[in-house]
Amino acid sequence: MASKKKDTHEVVQHFGDLIKGIKVAMMTTVEEDGSLRSRPMWTHDRDFDGELWFFTREHSPKVDEVEHDHHVNLAYSDPARDRYVSVSGRCRLVRDREKARELWNPTLKAWFPEGLDDPELALLCVRVERAEYWDTPNSRMVQLAGM
Amino acid sequence: MASKKKDTHEVVQHFGDLIKGIKVAMMTTVEEDGSLRSRPMWTHDRDFDGELWFFTREHSPKVDEVEHDHHVNLAYSDPARDRYVSVSGRCRLVRDREKARELWNPTLKAWFPEGLDDPELALLCVRVERAEYWDTPNSRMVQLAGM
Ligand SMILES: Cc1cc2nc3c(=O)[nH]c(=O)nc-3n(C[C@H](O)[C@H](O)[C@H](O)COP(=O)(O)O)c2cc1C
Repeated sequence: MASKKKDTHEVVQHFGDLIKGIKVAMMTTVEEDGSLRSRPMWTHDRDFDGELWFFTREHSPKVDEVEHDHHVNLAYSDPARDRYVSVSGRCRLVRDREKARELWNPTLKAWFPEGLDDPELALLCVRVERAEYWDTPNSRMVQLAGM
Repeated sequence: MASKKKDTHEVVQHFGDLIKGIKVAMMTTVEEDGSLRSRPMWTHDRDFDGELWFFTREHSPKVDEVEHDHHVNLAYSDPARDRYVSVSGRCRLVRDREKARELWNPTLKAWFPEGLDDPELALLCVRVERAEYWDTPNSRMVQLAGM
């Protein structure tokens, strides 16, 4: 499959543009028995710098899964625009009130009605290691290296 | 997270309805080093019976990944309709001309221009073990057991 390598700055910018407007990623994690599970996660529309942040409940199956195996995949897909992005990375749980305040968005009230006061509120930080995208109908994969 | 168990027949039917109309799934596989990769895969709009079929090239990274670790996740997402489905299952490579003929659809020419005559054409069959879905805005996960 044809693949193009690009330089880091270009890559990071293009990647940011691609996921802009796709608000929800499917985050896949590995369960203890090796099964793969995914769930929709709300992504922040902010400048991409190599990390992606998500809000989570501290006690939830995905946190257990991520603590057991850090590997995650984030799939961004927008069929209406024929745009598909796969992000491979490693994920860690972060308890940081300051960071949470910075990232907070009222949309998140749907999942965290108590907002920033919720004692269960925590963050997941994904360090992006590889990204691939398909952004035209019938396109071939383009690989973003060096992230 | 609230979860509802349903009986097998109801489950299978509802699941079929949910993914109907979502033509492309992101299929996540596990690489040898443990990283998770996903890519868009064209799904067939046919009655669901516990298995999902995909066309693939016989020699491709995803086939190597699946032979090394059978676990896959299929993420169906349709942001326009706020519909997200996670399917956990096991995947195997199937070389079966008869089955390929039965499943063939002209849309697939985009990835397999030689069509059914392509010697590299093969099938991936995913045996569904668990499915979860989120199908209303702000909905909680509903689990489909007993698949
Ligand atoms: C909308 C869309 C649908 C696709 N459907 C398929 C498919 O059904 N089978 C397939 O092998 N590749 C399909 N591809 C290409 C794959 O996403 C991927 O690039 C290719 O299979 C190589 O994947 P691999 O390197 O992980 O093996 C599709 C691509 C797009 C953009």
